[in-house]
Amino acid sequence: MENGLKERKNSIKEIDNEANSGISIKGILSLVTSNIDENNGKRVIKLVADYLSQDFPYELGSDDVYLTSGCTQAIDVALTTLARPGANILLPRPGFPIYELCASFRNLEVRHFNLIPDKGWEVDLDAVKALADHNTVAIVIINPGNPCGNVYSHGHLEKIAELAKTLGIVVIADEVYGHLAFGDNPFVPMGIFGSMVPVFTLGSLSKRWIVPGWRLGWFVTCDPNGMFKNPKIIERIKKYFDISSGPATIIQAAVPQILELTEEEFFREVLNLLKQTANICYEKVNETPGLACHYKPEGSMAVMVKLNLSQLEDISDDIDFAFKLAKEESVIILPGVTVGLKNWIRITFAAEPSSLIEGLERINSFCQRHAGDA
Amino acid sequence: MENGLKERKNSIKEIDNEANSGISIKGILSLVTSNIDENNGKRVIKLVADYLSQDFPYELGSDDVYLTSGCTQAIDVALTTLARPGANILLPRPGFPIYELCASFRNLEVRHFNLIPDKGWEVDLDAVKALADHNTVAIVIINPGNPCGNVYSHGHLEKIAELAKTLGIVVIADEVYGHLAFGDNPFVPMGIFGSMVPVFTLGSLSKRWIVPGWRLGWFVTCDPNGMFKNPKIIERIKKYFDISSGPATIIQAAVPQILELTEEEFFREVLNLLKQTANICYEKVNETPGLACHYKPEGSMAVMVKLNLSQLEDISDDIDFAFKLAKEESVIILPGVTVGLKNWIRITFAAEPSSLIEGLERINSFCQRHAGDA
Ligand SMILES: Cc1ncc(COP(=O)(O)O)c(C=O)c1O
Ligand SMILES: Cc1ncc(COP(=O)(O)O)c(C=O)c1O
Repeated sequence: MENGLKERKNSIKEIDNEANSGISIKGILSLVTSNIDENNGKRVIKLVADYLSQDFPYELGSDDVYLTSGCTQAIDVALTTLARPGANILLPRPGFPIYELCASFRNLEVRHFNLIPDKGWEVDLDAVKALADHNTVAIVIINPGNPCGNVYSHGHLEKIAELAKTLGIVVIADEVYGHLAFGDNPFVPMGIFGSMVPVFTLGSLSKRWIVPGWRLGWFVTCDPNGMFKNPKIIERIKKYFDISSGPATIIQAAVPQILELTEEEFFREVLNLLKQTANICYEKVNETPGLACHYKPEGSMAVMVKLNLSQLEDISDDIDFAFKLAKEESVIILPGVTVGLKNWIRITFAAEPSSLIEGLERINSFCQRHAGDA
Repeated sequence: MENGLKERKNSIKEIDNEANSGISIKGILSLVTSNIDENNGKRVIKLVADYLSQDFPYELGSDDVYLTSGCTQAIDVALTTLARPGANILLPRPGFPIYELCASFRNLEVRHFNLIPDKGWEVDLDAVKALADHNTVAIVIINPGNPCGNVYSHGHLEKIAELAKTLGIVVIADEVYGHLAFGDNPFVPMGIFGSMVPVFTLGSLSKRWIVPGWRLGWFVTCDPNGMFKNPKIIERIKKYFDISSGPATIIQAAVPQILELTEEEFFREVLNLLKQTANICYEKVNETPGLACHYKPEGSMAVMVKLNLSQLEDISDDIDFAFKLAKEESVIILPGVTVGLKNWIRITFAAEPSSLIEGLERINSFCQRHAGDA
C-alpha cells in the first residue's frame, strides 16, 4: 500500500519527459503531469520551518512541518492524531468553538478549564490539574487569544509547559494570531518549551498577513528531543495527509515571497492599527452603561466584554442583547455563550476605526436606551 | 453551539462597516473582515450545481453541492459521512488507493469486487451481490476509470444503479475524469439515476481543466426524491464542513470564468490528444514482448497492462519489473499491486506524444532484453 500512496503524484511522471515550455495543450498536459507540487511543497515546508525556527532555541526540520488548509485544518490534524477511545482533551473557556466541534466529530471527550478574566485571562492551572487524568491527551492554549485578546507572558507559558510535562500531555498551541501582540507582553511561541514537553504548534497566514481566504496553514511538531516521536503517532499524522490534500499550489507558490519579502513596515502598520482600534474599543465600552471590560486587549483581534444585566432593564441575557442590538442598531456582536461565557459578549476590533467608532456609538445608544433609571 | 458555527464568518462583520475601496492597510483589514467568502462561495456552489445539472433529467439545488479541496476531500466527505460501527463499503479492484486509505482511517471495512478486464473493465455484478450484506453502506464506481481507462455504457451504469437499489446502498460515483471520454461510449454521469438510487457524485476541476494543483472539487448529493435526505446524514455532512474549510477564495473567484467561459476548442483538443496518446500506448504495448493490453482505453488518463512473466526471463513480478525498468531505463511505471492487481502494470498516457513514444520504446527495449529466447 505504501507505494499506492505515492501513486497520485507519480502517476504523472511515469514516462520521464522533458520540461515543456510552450503553452500548447500538449505542453499543459505534460506540465500538469510532472510533479511540480511535490517539489514546491517541500520548499514551502522548509520555509515555514525556517520562519518558525527564527524564534526557537533549536531548529525545526522539514519533517516537523505539515502544510494545511488554514489553521482550521491544523486543528483537525491535531485532534484526529490524538483521538483514541476514551481520550479527553482540555479546552479553554472561553474558547474557539471549532475545537468543540472537531472534538465531538473525532469522539474526543471535552473538559473545560477557565481562563481568569482578572488575571489577564491566564489559564486556571489548578483547574487544569483537577481536570486531567490518565486519559487526558492534550491541553489547548490559544495565544495571542481569541476571543479574549490576551497575550501570555513567558513565565505563564512556562508554567503551562511544566504542568503539561507533569501531567504527561501534549500542549496544542494555537498561534494563528502569532505576532499580533501590541501590548506589554511580546509574543512568545510555546514551541520554545518543546524540549520540556511536546508541543503541536498550529498557525496560518490568515491573521498576520490578513489573507484568511488563502487557506494556507501549518501543523508543526515541536519536539526536539523526540519525546513524542512515537512511530504510531507519526504514522497517524502521515496517514491523515495521505488522504487529504494540502493548500492549492498557486497559494504555495506565493509563500516564498510572503514569508521572505513582506516588509516590516506592513507588520508595524497592522499592529499600530490593531493597537489603536483595541484602545478605542476598550475606552468606548467602558463609557457604556451595562458594559465592562477590565482587561485591555493586548493581542489578536477580539475582546470579551461583561454585561451587567442589573443595569440593563429589559435585557434578559447575552443572546437577547445580541438580537435586540442587531434589530435596533444593525450592529452584530457575538453572544458570549457561543464561546462558552454566558452574559458576556465578544467584540472584534479588527475594523476600520471610523466604522468601529460608529458601531460602538450605536452600542452605546442602545445601552443608554435600555439602561432604565439606574 | 449552532451559533458558534457561524462565529468564524460573522466575527468579522460584527460592526457593520461600509465597503472600503482604498488599498490602505485599514482598507485591507476591513475587507478581509467582511465575509466575501461566503457570498462568493454561494455563487460558486450554484454554478457547480448548474454545470452538473446540464446533463441531468432534474435540477440540482445549491443544497446538494459542497465545495471541497479537490476530489480527494470529496472522497473523505463521502466515506466519513457513511461510516458507522460495523459498516462496510464495496470498492473496485483495481481501484484508486486513496479509497482504501480513507476507509481504514474512518474505520470502514473494505470489500473488493473485481472489474472484468475482458468486458471493458465492467463491474462484476454477481460479485457485488455476493459481497453485500445489511452492513454495506455504499459501492464506489470510478467512471471514466482510473486505473483502467474504462468508460461505462448507459446500460451498465443502469444495471449498477438497479443493483444498488436492490441492496439498499448508496452509489459513490467518482467522476473526477468526467467528460474525458474519447472512445465509443460517451460519458454518462451516474447522477442521472439519482431518482432510482441515491448517488454521491464526486468531482473536481483537476482533470477536465488540467489544474490538479488548484484543489477545487465537489461532493454532490444526487437524490431528487430525497430518499437519502435523512436529517442525520445531512447533519453529518454539515458537521464535516463546519470543521473543515473549503477551497481558497482566490480559486473560487476563478470558477465562474472556468465553468462558463472555457471554450469547446480547449476540451476538444485535450480529448484529441488523449485519444492519440491512448492509441499510441495501446499499440506500442501490444508490440512489446511480455506485455498485453486487451482493452484499448476509452477515457481518463491511464491503462492497465498485463505482464506475461513466462515471456520475461528474469523478472519475478510487477514490482521487480518496475524497479528494474526504473534502474535500467529511467522510466517509472506503477506496479499493479499498488492498485490491487498483481503482475499487471499501470501506464498513464497523459504525456506529450514524443515523450510517451520515447518512454514506450525504452519499455520495449527493456522487455526485448529480458525476453530470453522465447
Ligand atoms: C483561535 C483560532 N484558531 C484557528 C482559526 C482558524 O484559522 P484559519 O482561518 O487559518 O483557518 C481561527 C480563525 O478565526 C481562530 O480564531
Ligand atoms: C479516481 C480518482 N479519484 C480522485 C482523484 C483525486 O482528484 P483531485 O486531484 O481533484 O483531488 C484522482 C486523482 O488522480 C483519481 O484518479
